[in-house]
Amino acid sequence: MSDTARQTAGVPGRYQQVVLASRPVTRPSVGNFRLETVATPSLGDGQVLVRNRFLSIDPYMLGRMFDARSYAAPQSLGEVMIGETVGEIVASRHPRWAVGDTVLGPLGWQEIAVSDGGNLDKITDSDIGLSAYLGAVGMTGITAWYGMQQICEPRPGETVVVSGAAGAVGSVAVQLARERGCRVIGIAGGARKCDTVTREFGAAACVDYRGAPDAAALQAAITHLSPHGVDAFFDNVNGMTLDAVLPLMKPFGRIALCGMIARYGQQPMTLSSHGYLLLSRLRAQGFIVFDHRPLWPQARAELAAMVRGGRLKVHETVSEGIASAPAACIGLMEGKNLGKQIVKLY
Amino acid sequence: MSDTARQTAGVPGRYQQVVLASRPVTRPSVGNFRLETVATPSLGDGQVLVRNRFLSIDPYMLGRMFDARSYAAPQSLGEVMIGETVGEIVASRHPRWAVGDTVLGPLGWQEIAVSDGGNLDKITDSDIGLSAYLGAVGMTGITAWYGMQQICEPRPGETVVVSGAAGAVGSVAVQLARERGCRVIGIAGGARKCDTVTREFGAAACVDYRGAPDAAALQAAITHLSPHGVDAFFDNVNGMTLDAVLPLMKPFGRIALCGMIARYGQQPMTLSSHGYLLLSRLRAQGFIVFDHRPLWPQARAELAAMVRGGRLKVHETVSEGIASAPAACIGLMEGKNLGKQIVKLY
Repeated sequence: MSDTARQTAGVPGRYQQVVLASRPVTRPSVGNFRLETVATPSLGDGQVLVRNRFLSIDPYMLGRMFDARSYAAPQSLGEVMIGETVGEIVASRHPRWAVGDTVLGPLGWQEIAVSDGGNLDKITDSDIGLSAYLGAVGMTGITAWYGMQQICEPRPGETVVVSGAAGAVGSVAVQLARERGCRVIGIAGGARKCDTVTREFGAAACVDYRGAPDAAALQAAITHLSPHGVDAFFDNVNGMTLDAVLPLMKPFGRIALCGMIARYGQQPMTLSSHGYLLLSRLRAQGFIVFDHRPLWPQARAELAAMVRGGRLKVHETVSEGIASAPAACIGLMEGKNLGKQIVKLY
Repeated sequence: MSDTARQTAGVPGRYQQVVLASRPVTRPSVGNFRLETVATPSLGDGQVLVRNRFLSIDPYMLGRMFDARSYAAPQSLGEVMIGETVGEIVASRHPRWAVGDTVLGPLGWQEIAVSDGGNLDKITDSDIGLSAYLGAVGMTGITAWYGMQQICEPRPGETVVVSGAAGAVGSVAVQLARERGCRVIGIAGGARKCDTVTREFGAAACVDYRGAPDAAALQAAITHLSPHGVDAFFDNVNGMTLDAVLPLMKPFGRIALCGMIARYGQQPMTLSSHGYLLLSRLRAQGFIVFDHRPLWPQARAELAAMVRGGRLKVHETVSEGIASAPAACIGLMEGKNLGKQIVKLY
């Protein structure tokens, strides 16, 4: 059977994809996306056809929708939205890839994708759920690992605060700090999320920021739970949350600046407590996990071992079908997800 | 001749000191200080009497005048103002210290001081001017060394920005960065200071912040001089200056947070460009040189070698007499000093 014949047998002739139709003016919305149906292409030499099973939805996507300076080029208009996927090779004209291989790659918001194999990683472990390769043992988990391990440097007995603690990155960060013998205080939105952060992820306590009208109130709530100060802060939120925690940091505290959930929608954010960076001799460091590829295998191995040992809970919010991706993405901004947001494609 | 007799022969029976008389409400002023004349005490066993020759005036003193949280306890009311001095032992009842020893110590704003010797360092080098032990090869220079060497980590060919570049710490920071093969852009107030920063300290260029009404204007001026961005920033100012430079930092840039000249007087400061810490994956670190005593000998040796080799210019503004100390201190806030502010006591 020829490759073309294989493809024809196993793959639909048409598939759906989501493109960025327009840029947000203030806040991103589902109206900025467009669902399209296109014909499945035929393969050239050295190419493979991947049928995506899971799509990762991540906060950085919201930033790329704008045409503003970010740590990466903006998403092009009219092009398939960027995104990490896990899928299966359903046709191959590449000597190193076979039909049936399970692959991880940046194949975007689409049901089917063509690749030359250069951007694919083969998944060979079968004892961890496939979608976890997009979350706890994927880019998301490695983000938490890098910020916690390389920047927060938690030591046993220290107090570590994690904002966005119920989210994909935050939930792993909480569990990594706890694994290292720290007392973890989460910050999350709503009683249900806070309950999960303590009960499932093992934080000692969790502050519901929705009960705090301003930075002073949030600060008071954290102080109440941690009267002796904070050694390390893993921040996914910035804005008011960062302003509230900075004055609580102990001397020589470490702050991993991982995300700016507060910023989506491009509201201006001002900081007034940054003087504590000097007063308390803090180190604040921003990072993007993509800059640190050489550390990924080490991080992935540790995260996978924790998952296998039951010490890292994989928590996912799963929506069904490619058409659900825009709402899932906008939902991140509104804090609708608990744990990693995944779109299941088939 | 007894110790008491020695003292009587070489030392005035009365001397002058400056105490903090009141705390500033908004901005510190000379009215917050009081000059007092007191009797020279007689020595107990294990004590020495030091006649101070030079007093160091430093920006941190302005912060200590307030009763607000700082990195150190506030200066007590009615007590002699804290400060580093270089002086000579004029009477000794201590076995390890002899009359005639030249000593460096935190003996405060006074002409005469009693010490048990535990807080004194003996100065044995005679080829560097004594006042330099308060400046370029003292706490001030070591501050510049720590921030530049340990935080800014400048590499040959990089662009380094130094704010407060004509000041005591900044002038050494500029010269250290240049010594390491960097292109240095200074920020200072006024044409005369900028001229000194380039001509004497060796900066490639210097921006006069007085010509910049806001952060955007300051940013434009720096961008003009350094269109490819900034690798490291040694910041003595904070406030508008930090806000202006953050967006200009190259990816993985380093920021040493050394001082907050903008803050003296306790005006509120807000930052709006801190998102660049994440976007550009920057590392910002506050530091206080007193936390890093083990590195002082290494720093002092390097600074002294640079002074001897003519590669580190010692620039001082010297006022005469203890009564001039309050105005010299307030003058720091107004940027009146060029290089290190010293009070010569005799």
